[in-house]
Amino acid sequence: MMAKSRAGVRAWQAMPKPVVRDPGDAVVRITTSTICSTDLHIMKGDVPTVTPGRILGHEGVGIIEAVGPQVSSFRKGDRVLISCISACGTCDACRKGMYSHCRTGGWILGNTIDGTQAEFVRTPHAETSLYPLPPTVNEEAAVMLSDILPTAFECGVLNGQVKPGDTVAIVGAGPIGLAALLTVQFYSPAAILMIDLDDNRLRVASQFGATSWINSADGNAVASVMALTGGTGVDVAIEAVGVPSTFDICQSILAPGGRLANIGVHGKPVQLNLEKLWDRNVAITTRLVDTAAIPMLLKLVNSGKLQPAKLITHRFPLNDIMRPTTRSATPPRNVR
Amino acid sequence: MMAKSRAGVRAWQAMPKPVVRDPGDAVVRITTSTICSTDLHIMKGDVPTVTPGRILGHEGVGIIEAVGPQVSSFRKGDRVLISCISACGTCDACRKGMYSHCRTGGWILGNTIDGTQAEFVRTPHAETSLYPLPPTVNEEAAVMLSDILPTAFECGVLNGQVKPGDTVAIVGAGPIGLAALLTVQFYSPAAILMIDLDDNRLRVASQFGATSWINSADGNAVASVMALTGGTGVDVAIEAVGVPSTFDICQSILAPGGRLANIGVHGKPVQLNLEKLWDRNVAITTRLVDTAAIPMLLKLVNSGKLQPAKLITHRFPLNDIMRPTTRSATPPRNVR
Amino acid sequence: MMAKSRAGVRAWQAMPKPVVRDPGDAVVRITTSTICSTDLHIMKGDVPTVTPGRILGHEGVGIIEAVGPQVSSFRKGDRVLISCISACGTCDACRKGMYSHCRTGGWILGNTIDGTQAEFVRTPHAETSLYPLPPTVNEEAAVMLSDILPTAFECGVLNGQVKPGDTVAIVGAGPIGLAALLTVQFYSPAAILMIDLDDNRLRVASQFGATSWINSADGNAVASVMALTGGTGVDVAIEAVGVPSTFDICQSILAPGGRLANIGVHGKPVQLNLEKLWDRNVAITTRLVDTAAIPMLLKLVNSGKLQPAKLITHRFPLNDIMRPTTRSATPPRNVR
Amino acid sequence: MMAKSRAGVRAWQAMPKPVVRDPGDAVVRITTSTICSTDLHIMKGDVPTVTPGRILGHEGVGIIEAVGPQVSSFRKGDRVLISCISACGTCDACRKGMYSHCRTGGWILGNTIDGTQAEFVRTPHAETSLYPLPPTVNEEAAVMLSDILPTAFECGVLNGQVKPGDTVAIVGAGPIGLAALLTVQFYSPAAILMIDLDDNRLRVASQFGATSWINSADGNAVASVMALTGGTGVDVAIEAVGVPSTFDICQSILAPGGRLANIGVHGKPVQLNLEKLWDRNVAITTRLVDTAAIPMLLKLVNSGKLQPAKLITHRFPLNDIMRPTTRSATPPRNVR
Repeated sequence: MMAKSRAGVRAWQAMPKPVVRDPGDAVVRITTSTICSTDLHIMKGDVPTVTPGRILGHEGVGIIEAVGPQVSSFRKGDRVLISCISACGTCDACRKGMYSHCRTGGWILGNTIDGTQAEFVRTPHAETSLYPLPPTVNEEAAVMLSDILPTAFECGVLNGQVKPGDTVAIVGAGPIGLAALLTVQFYSPAAILMIDLDDNRLRVASQFGATSWINSADGNAVASVMALTGGTGVDVAIEAVGVPSTFDICQSILAPGGRLANIGVHGKPVQLNLEKLWDRNVAITTRLVDTAAIPMLLKLVNSGKLQPAKLITHRFPLNDIMRPTTRSATPPRNVR
Repeated sequence: MMAKSRAGVRAWQAMPKPVVRDPGDAVVRITTSTICSTDLHIMKGDVPTVTPGRILGHEGVGIIEAVGPQVSSFRKGDRVLISCISACGTCDACRKGMYSHCRTGGWILGNTIDGTQAEFVRTPHAETSLYPLPPTVNEEAAVMLSDILPTAFECGVLNGQVKPGDTVAIVGAGPIGLAALLTVQFYSPAAILMIDLDDNRLRVASQFGATSWINSADGNAVASVMALTGGTGVDVAIEAVGVPSTFDICQSILAPGGRLANIGVHGKPVQLNLEKLWDRNVAITTRLVDTAAIPMLLKLVNSGKLQPAKLITHRFPLNDIMRPTTRSATPPRNVR
Repeated sequence: MMAKSRAGVRAWQAMPKPVVRDPGDAVVRITTSTICSTDLHIMKGDVPTVTPGRILGHEGVGIIEAVGPQVSSFRKGDRVLISCISACGTCDACRKGMYSHCRTGGWILGNTIDGTQAEFVRTPHAETSLYPLPPTVNEEAAVMLSDILPTAFECGVLNGQVKPGDTVAIVGAGPIGLAALLTVQFYSPAAILMIDLDDNRLRVASQFGATSWINSADGNAVASVMALTGGTGVDVAIEAVGVPSTFDICQSILAPGGRLANIGVHGKPVQLNLEKLWDRNVAITTRLVDTAAIPMLLKLVNSGKLQPAKLITHRFPLNDIMRPTTRSATPPRNVR
Repeated sequence: MMAKSRAGVRAWQAMPKPVVRDPGDAVVRITTSTICSTDLHIMKGDVPTVTPGRILGHEGVGIIEAVGPQVSSFRKGDRVLISCISACGTCDACRKGMYSHCRTGGWILGNTIDGTQAEFVRTPHAETSLYPLPPTVNEEAAVMLSDILPTAFECGVLNGQVKPGDTVAIVGAGPIGLAALLTVQFYSPAAILMIDLDDNRLRVASQFGATSWINSADGNAVASVMALTGGTGVDVAIEAVGVPSTFDICQSILAPGGRLANIGVHGKPVQLNLEKLWDRNVAITTRLVDTAAIPMLLKLVNSGKLQPAKLITHRFPLNDIMRPTTRSATPPRNVR
């Protein structure tokens, strides 16, 4: 029994159990998975690479069921974390650590091949796309490392080049924004300003370490940030939503020398105010997560310095997937 | 007798000889100066900070005439290079090497205070804004180091993080684009693609080290670059014009992981295609020149590895400034 | 009444009140100072640049008493932090942020000119060597920013290029080692191994965030570190003592790709085991503190993320300086 | 018919043709190989990992003869460059680009498994250890990319962080030192000082781009460098020999902030003068070549910007290997 999807239509039906097809494959029995807001976009028909009938899901933890002849690091019974990015490890992109642009991989799970919202999943390039899970690491914590935490860290924090003492703004307090909030603290910024439309999310942000929170519903977010920073603006602005208005806040609050790290998945172009920014010594970055940070994140989870379980609020059995919910029709506003 | 300007009106008239006003000032007798295309923009009225009556010019070489009591590194008679950026050296921006955003300096010469297109100029913050000129360095070569070469190098080459073996495109073969072409070769890219509307400029570029040249008049520049790079795009795109169409070429030719280094002075916003770029791992940078690279450039001129004199094509006595010219009414298209 | 020193002989005597001598000077009335272990070395005669009769002390907080005509950022009555490094801000070394090697400054206070263990001190290059103290910052906390915290951070943590998830060893749990322990946590290492001969210090280290502590008195420190790291060694080893035996521990515990950041003041050469290290991809760094990190550290103190007061255990009035103490004859073993 | 070696004894004898043993192997028919000075060290018995009977050689170009089932990028008949480093591409070291410390690879060819001084060689981890040779690249040029050029570039130039305008000293003008001389010019240093005991080598260096050359036979090399640099010393010192005396020259000529990049293979410890260097802000690095730079070097050879053929002076047929030579007993002094 597995979950299946078609544009706009959810289905829950039996599917053939996947098998090792290529010598580098593993088949993993899923024990924990999640629903990413990208899955909600897929359900709305926003992601044309996903064809009808595809099993969704690109996050997961599970037990190795079988491996192909090229897989030497894993064996049946191993508990593993599945990266949302499949990487061959040998192409020119992979050699640069840019696994997201692997010539034969990248984001394929739950996109161009069947994904993790099922009892079993076939994972290509298993050697470089699975990670052994130390017995000390809880599965629910670990599944946050498949996508959301590396995404927030690599695209937001690393690209933003956050340094100790920096002033950082995070625009969007959805799951990705909150994950950026958790991981930005690895670099000890002096101030973290959280901006969102939802007071509940801002309240969570304040518990997670934000030093200021701004509800942008009144349209004054930029003025508020400038006031809070003595008119200077922020060293780093992390865009964690993916719409023009939030990008615009980010570009309007950068101090000279500031960095704008985009995490959001954008569906349309934005206006870049180069007439104001050309002489401001700023950098704007984009990135599809490479998940190169997974080993580091595992170390920090293992040492207790990162507690991803904080991000988890609801738990469902897989077969609840067809249950109608009030929220299912309207994906949260500010999520990736 | 000095050159003076007002929006749209040039004047050539006697002005009082400048004197040391602040203790960190020097007064320099100008021996060589140049006209920057920014001066042409000023003449068109594009730069509102320049008030009528201002002596233009932010590039120059000369002989120290007098120094204030705080100036200890220079004395009357020293031959100096004048940076286009005045920097106090002590404010928070200067401490980070971001002299362009000096709290009491930045680009002020020929902008908010009188500039170098005159017989004498007062230069504030002389200690950190003038550079001793080795006797071996030719004045005409040196004046290229006031603005154009550090601008091309810092905003284009350094921000573009050019590495040996890279494929680089430079969009705009005007003086700044050509200066980028000269200085990008400090890092030994494997290929340098030069793009412009003017075949004469492209011919010069081919003599200066470009490995390919593309006339973008036919609107096919992007396709040409993609064809030349086997469909991959470039590692670095340097924008050396400052209009939306050239920025657009740059953002359309970036390989995954590529850098877009903007040098151009933009007068209006551009469209940034984040719907295509959000997952491409790119960086877009802006910068007002800091001229922090002047000492390094002087070393390379001194050692013969950089020959800025290549960039010089015409020479005029200062009092020719009022002579009508065919080009004066229409500033070149692709220049900064 | 002021403190004075001569090799081996302490003195406490009246001295003329210092005055502004150079136009960039300030005179500061000292309100808080400290004794650095370097002062103990001076008292033993180890630092030949310190001539008899010199007032010692290079750390301090105070109130501006007078400023020279070149000083524009400070005025009488301002509360300031004094950097142990005097920096002109304009020489080639200062332009690179390497204030420690300023052509007319560097470590001169309490060394080649009179220092801060007195009621008043003359501070050259005041503009770039004093820092305004926010009213929210406690003086005792601030005085830890004159030398010890920037030294530990710049020479140990920054040079060690500590990254989130790293395993770091700090050899020496004296004041500098403990300051390294506090500041290394800005970068969220997964494990911090503290090594010292003194169990009391190790106990303090465990309270300050060390994850393991090793008493090296039994000569097995290297074996212990290798055991704790599964035979791999550490990503970063910070040398915070300054003798051959502690350097030797550091070079023996580096993982491939590891960094050895030396903080210790060494009085003699060490043996570098290049026959073992030539192929290990390691880096060994040295540095005299530049105090370029002071503004960042002030921000983190101000935001509560750094609590330097933890490092303070004893307080004395200045005129206690002549009181015989049991400890004065034997400087602590493992201190800088 | 193949070349074989035992400590102190060369042999030339028939050996079984190697076959694919592991699924990631390739077998390559060698068309060009070289003798590295490391091979001379092996012949002297200096490298204990090399057991008697081993076929030496870790550099080579050839034609693929057979591939194992895991090899998908290469097929029989492909012309390839063989890296001296075998890298699995998936272990933790390889993921960091530190192929030299691959858990199941590293320098094994001609060391712990049979090497390239033979008609055929088995190359493990072929996917990530072989490089396709563009038809435009000459084989003799290419074989310089197996080891010597990446070694000089990665261990000397990259680790030395050479920047445009720098002053660089290279100690040792043997093949590795000359390769460092060629590749350091990728970064446009203003001055390159070459130091060796042999005037012939220094003459070659002057033709290859050195700006000064110093014969160190008189013991005055340090004084000469200091004189040539106005008493400041060099930004980067590249050690390309591997004995204490040359390391000592390097540590004695570093400017404040300088980098010492060690390439030499050292057989014994050196004395590190930390009592002089502790406050000089220097970095000392070591590295076993990772050959991560091979793709970049191939691009620069292909574009004509690097001409490795310059390094080639003698050519021999493989079966000349037993011919007695005057030089065979005494390996050159200053080579790696």
